[in-house]
Amino acid sequence: MFEHVKMNNMTWQEFAKKKDDVIILPIGATEQHGPHLPLCVDSVIAEEFALRIADKINGVVAPILSYGYKSKPLSGGGPLFPGTIDLNGATLQHLVMDLIDEFVKDGFKKIYIFSAHFENEAFIVEAMDLASAKHGDKVQLLLTNWWDPMSPDVIDKIFTEVPFPGWALEHAAVTETSLMMYFRPELVREDAILEMENAKPGTYFRYPIEKDIVPETGVLASAKSSSPEKGKIIVDDAIENILKIIDKAFK
Amino acid sequence: MFEHVKMNNMTWQEFAKKKDDVIILPIGATEQHGPHLPLCVDSVIAEEFALRIADKINGVVAPILSYGYKSKPLSGGGPLFPGTIDLNGATLQHLVMDLIDEFVKDGFKKIYIFSAHFENEAFIVEAMDLASAKHGDKVQLLLTNWWDPMSPDVIDKIFTEVPFPGWALEHAAVTETSLMMYFRPELVREDAILEMENAKPGTYFRYPIEKDIVPETGVLASAKSSSPEKGKIIVDDAIENILKIIDKAFK
Amino acid sequence: MFEHVKMNNMTWQEFAKKKDDVIILPIGATEQHGPHLPLCVDSVIAEEFALRIADKINGVVAPILSYGYKSKPLSGGGPLFPGTIDLNGATLQHLVMDLIDEFVKDGFKKIYIFSAHFENEAFIVEAMDLASAKHGDKVQLLLTNWWDPMSPDVIDKIFTEVPFPGWALEHAAVTETSLMMYFRPELVREDAILEMENAKPGTYFRYPIEKDIVPETGVLASAKSSSPEKGKIIVDDAIENILKIIDKAFK
Amino acid sequence: MFEHVKMNNMTWQEFAKKKDDVIILPIGATEQHGPHLPLCVDSVIAEEFALRIADKINGVVAPILSYGYKSKPLSGGGPLFPGTIDLNGATLQHLVMDLIDEFVKDGFKKIYIFSAHFENEAFIVEAMDLASAKHGDKVQLLLTNWWDPMSPDVIDKIFTEVPFPGWALEHAAVTETSLMMYFRPELVREDAILEMENAKPGTYFRYPIEKDIVPETGVLASAKSSSPEKGKIIVDDAIENILKIIDKAFK
Amino acid sequence: MFEHVKMNNMTWQEFAKKKDDVIILPIGATEQHGPHLPLCVDSVIAEEFALRIADKINGVVAPILSYGYKSKPLSGGGPLFPGTIDLNGATLQHLVMDLIDEFVKDGFKKIYIFSAHFENEAFIVEAMDLASAKHGDKVQLLLTNWWDPMSPDVIDKIFTEVPFPGWALEHAAVTETSLMMYFRPELVREDAILEMENAKPGTYFRYPIEKDIVPETGVLASAKSSSPEKGKIIVDDAIENILKIIDKAFK
Amino acid sequence: MFEHVKMNNMTWQEFAKKKDDVIILPIGATEQHGPHLPLCVDSVIAEEFALRIADKINGVVAPILSYGYKSKPLSGGGPLFPGTIDLNGATLQHLVMDLIDEFVKDGFKKIYIFSAHFENEAFIVEAMDLASAKHGDKVQLLLTNWWDPMSPDVIDKIFTEVPFPGWALEHAAVTETSLMMYFRPELVREDAILEMENAKPGTYFRYPIEKDIVPETGVLASAKSSSPEKGKIIVDDAIENILKIIDKAFK
Repeated sequence: MFEHVKMNNMTWQEFAKKKDDVIILPIGATEQHGPHLPLCVDSVIAEEFALRIADKINGVVAPILSYGYKSKPLSGGGPLFPGTIDLNGATLQHLVMDLIDEFVKDGFKKIYIFSAHFENEAFIVEAMDLASAKHGDKVQLLLTNWWDPMSPDVIDKIFTEVPFPGWALEHAAVTETSLMMYFRPELVREDAILEMENAKPGTYFRYPIEKDIVPETGVLASAKSSSPEKGKIIVDDAIENILKIIDKAFK
Repeated sequence: MFEHVKMNNMTWQEFAKKKDDVIILPIGATEQHGPHLPLCVDSVIAEEFALRIADKINGVVAPILSYGYKSKPLSGGGPLFPGTIDLNGATLQHLVMDLIDEFVKDGFKKIYIFSAHFENEAFIVEAMDLASAKHGDKVQLLLTNWWDPMSPDVIDKIFTEVPFPGWALEHAAVTETSLMMYFRPELVREDAILEMENAKPGTYFRYPIEKDIVPETGVLASAKSSSPEKGKIIVDDAIENILKIIDKAFK
Repeated sequence: MFEHVKMNNMTWQEFAKKKDDVIILPIGATEQHGPHLPLCVDSVIAEEFALRIADKINGVVAPILSYGYKSKPLSGGGPLFPGTIDLNGATLQHLVMDLIDEFVKDGFKKIYIFSAHFENEAFIVEAMDLASAKHGDKVQLLLTNWWDPMSPDVIDKIFTEVPFPGWALEHAAVTETSLMMYFRPELVREDAILEMENAKPGTYFRYPIEKDIVPETGVLASAKSSSPEKGKIIVDDAIENILKIIDKAFK
Repeated sequence: MFEHVKMNNMTWQEFAKKKDDVIILPIGATEQHGPHLPLCVDSVIAEEFALRIADKINGVVAPILSYGYKSKPLSGGGPLFPGTIDLNGATLQHLVMDLIDEFVKDGFKKIYIFSAHFENEAFIVEAMDLASAKHGDKVQLLLTNWWDPMSPDVIDKIFTEVPFPGWALEHAAVTETSLMMYFRPELVREDAILEMENAKPGTYFRYPIEKDIVPETGVLASAKSSSPEKGKIIVDDAIENILKIIDKAFK
Repeated sequence: MFEHVKMNNMTWQEFAKKKDDVIILPIGATEQHGPHLPLCVDSVIAEEFALRIADKINGVVAPILSYGYKSKPLSGGGPLFPGTIDLNGATLQHLVMDLIDEFVKDGFKKIYIFSAHFENEAFIVEAMDLASAKHGDKVQLLLTNWWDPMSPDVIDKIFTEVPFPGWALEHAAVTETSLMMYFRPELVREDAILEMENAKPGTYFRYPIEKDIVPETGVLASAKSSSPEKGKIIVDDAIENILKIIDKAFK
Repeated sequence: MFEHVKMNNMTWQEFAKKKDDVIILPIGATEQHGPHLPLCVDSVIAEEFALRIADKINGVVAPILSYGYKSKPLSGGGPLFPGTIDLNGATLQHLVMDLIDEFVKDGFKKIYIFSAHFENEAFIVEAMDLASAKHGDKVQLLLTNWWDPMSPDVIDKIFTEVPFPGWALEHAAVTETSLMMYFRPELVREDAILEMENAKPGTYFRYPIEKDIVPETGVLASAKSSSPEKGKIIVDDAIENILKIIDKAFK
């Protein structure tokens, strides 16, 4: 459905013609998402958003980065869960820097990074800062996720049955589960969605990591009340706002 | 008043005796804080908290790191203001890693990092993660700031005249100004505190940085209604909660 | 068809059960492949081989690395073609090192890297060497591509109409085109396959890169006579031999 | 007394006005200095010199770096003493490079680094070399300590009772003790100053470090005969000569 | 005999006059070469070729790099043999980058690297790529070895008694032994040349390295039938072809 | 004459037998030494000392590192002279670390580094410190040069006609020239030895480097009165003292 915006499918001549358009780099993660969601949640969400946005703005979507920065206990369950594959910060940073350099060499001037994994942010921003110092004013770099641009009233539409636990705890919870029900229903094990108490938000970082501060399932807040419809509400609202950000950022 | 907890003042023999106690590393920043506060705000706050906490727990305070990670427009005004001195992320990370290694070599097993600059967090945590992988279970590392451990009801006590703008915009605003009035009143230019509209919280990162998204003064929300009494409320509450965290983390 | 071997589709509990099996990391590239093939050729080939091999040995396939090391003029057309996205060697090396570390932390002891892009090899091997020094004898690391394990007589079966130009020049030529016709026929632009003279094999490296040593199309030898049947011959033979290598390497 | 030259005390607007003046970065160390001096000796000396020099030349003093490069046995007692906190060379180098970059971004063109810890020198110079290659002729970088610029005849005035043991062994000895008596008498434990034989100067480096080549106290030559008056002689003479160097270097 | 082309022998004034000529950097290795050849084989060959080429083109030969990148089992015997001294890839890369930078600072624009150790290639090329990105079109960088430029028919002249085992296995075998007999006969232990079966070419990389895939002597194919005359044939042919490459590369 | 101690000349089996002996790594530099000495002075001196010492202690001499750390104006003339080829500090450090690691892998436990270039010291020591932290007490590392171990009275024997200018200025002056007359008389241009005034010792570091602080010839003090006999005096005395250091260090 969105095959036409994928860089992967293009020949080099087709790709060369896109250089004045926006190139979107989706960055996800490979990270535990409890017993009801697969390890690819953040990557699926990043790619699906990227494709829909590219479709709207005539952009091109570069191959996704499927591995992200280190999951933290109280925003993603943390490194002790099998299947959570954590890059070092420096590795992610250099990966993003190299890709920005290469897109610029190919003539692109509008580079939009979409990250669906909270922990990625600081190291992507560090890469953008250093890349921007190198490439100057002619190259414009943008980073968003899907939750910060959401309209405040969407929270109310989504959290009709359970209270909003705060974004940090929205891991494998209502929003991500709803998004996966919308994007890839076949990958959601609905019968494994459990009633549970929310984890307590973190107020500090401690190493070695304390195992008992994360629920054993890896889910930080209940995914009960998730639905594909809620997924669609999030997607539609976030994309609408993101298009405005893109418009302003790449003016 | 807190001279007895400063590592700086100790001879090596005196310091050697402290190795079973908690060593506190304060990390601040050198960063613009508008026309009414000096560049040292984050460093003063980090050190003053560290000294008071050390005094309570019989700890020792290591020399402060006065330079921090890169200020961002909508949490600190960003790099375009003179006086904002930004370390690269890798530099801060290696600095913290080296210091942890050295404290461990000197026999310390309880290392507490206190950061008063939001942007430092990701790179300090990366350093802690890598240091912990190296030193294993015998060494316990803790990081807090002063805002996350605060009791929720303190917000209500502080924001009696102006609404709480969110932590990101609390830069050179009521909380930091009140803390400086409490810690170092002689460094606060009270007549330079202005009425102003809050900056709008950031929902994306864009490079090169857009100059027009930060107020010209560098202040992100009004510091009106700040007072040393409010500073004391914050300090007393945060320290009380931090002592509980320390107790749990270094059990 | 191979969904059951994809790590991406597993929950963390499902993935945790695979730890005594072989985990396969496919590494491709995003690189020009002339006017008849898309930029994803090396990534498609890497992933399709990985899936088939995993299916045979009850393994698990980790998410692919879609960006590889720098394309060279006389083995891939080189960096001057748009769409060829080159990582620095150090970046690829650290990426692979981080992933090996993480697989090992999750309990895996048999890690098989499949690369379909010649230029990746030296930096993957450097990563393996350093990772092996760290993890010791308990962790076994294996790297293959698809061309070195092929039986010598397959060359004769494939190159029935055009002479074998040597592996370096087999870029976007008969073998890769046949593989793509077998794996993803819808991505092959058959009418763009041209008669052409082979490029001359490189006997030196020169920088800045000489533009005139690579054909303008980016194809190094004619893809004429490619067919899905030839693709299947390669796949069947290479996998048979790779299974023997795996058997020996992970005994 | 020197509060007006401290960058720490300035608002960003005040700091911005100083950009055509000299900015001084003091670099000290946290290092054992025997039983009669505190760990902050090198930092106190670096900062006190920097303040006095800034006062003379209308300069500005940036926050001090309180941690330095690795102490060596026969110039500082070495790493085996608790309280000696050693940065890796690369860390110090990158720290200095980042700070030079940031001062330059803020418009400064005359950057003066004052180090009071011998071992820092090679890594500061490496940072200066690389920063200078980046910033070119418009930015002038200067490094001094306090001992190399001293007039030769000052040695005679200081070493009236004990012979000059050479600069390497002047660790926690007459010159540093006299400087501390002048700058911070309250931190000197005069009754812990001992008669002792000098350590033997080093003629080689050996690892692991031999414990028996450094006196158990960490003092390398006797501090007997130290006095605040001698401290003043050193300060006055060194500053006079440093002002000439500054004048020549930043012409 | 070639003393006049050695940079080592020149004063700085003599060297300064050569800046418009070609500077040649030979890179060898310190690596086991069986019981009949010394550890310096690759370094001797690199230097001897470099001297002869410099003599023909009025060039200058920089001091050799005697340590190279990691030997691999089936192209050099690998790291398990004593005397094989392996640099990390990053070390070799930075070494070459630094030297290119320095030759350029001294005014050289034609820099030719001659490597006689196969494994060096990828990391030298990475250094050249990054250096070229820095120095641009004015600086021309060339890399060759001695085997790729050889005329195909020379193989037939050399392998009269034993079949050509492929270049990977030509380690301490006929070509290298013949070259050493020609360049340094006194270093060849002829009576230690053994009849043997060839090692089997590698089709994969496996770590930890399998000891049993390399013959115990470290020789990968028999050196029987080596002679100084064959060494001369190789040298004469390779140099003739290399001169043409140089001519084209530095036009 | 010393061919039997050169690692270069040994087969791997011969080298393997030396593992309980001392391995010596000579480190020189490629650096201007005025109009009367060649660029290889520091390398020749390093190697010649290493060979003689190895001969005395039954050691083995590894291939020399011919490139060293950055020459400084007032100890070596500095980087502005053609022919002075400067490695970055990090490059030299990693080179030495890699070599120590490799010697240790080959079973050596007594590693002696001989440097004949002053500026190398800090980065070699950093490498030794980090390598020692890795290898622990079983591996002993030693570094000397030739001037620090010299007996004080040798100065009087050498400086009979010109006064000793201090070691920093002994660049291309009496000691180095005498050593070269002793080791390699054919490389000394005696008629280019000039009367001259000494350079003034440095008391600070300034970048960009001031050209006028170094004599135009690159010689820092007159080499008049040099002789091979004086070279022999230095060699004999330094080696005698170095043998005692070795004895103590590797006990």
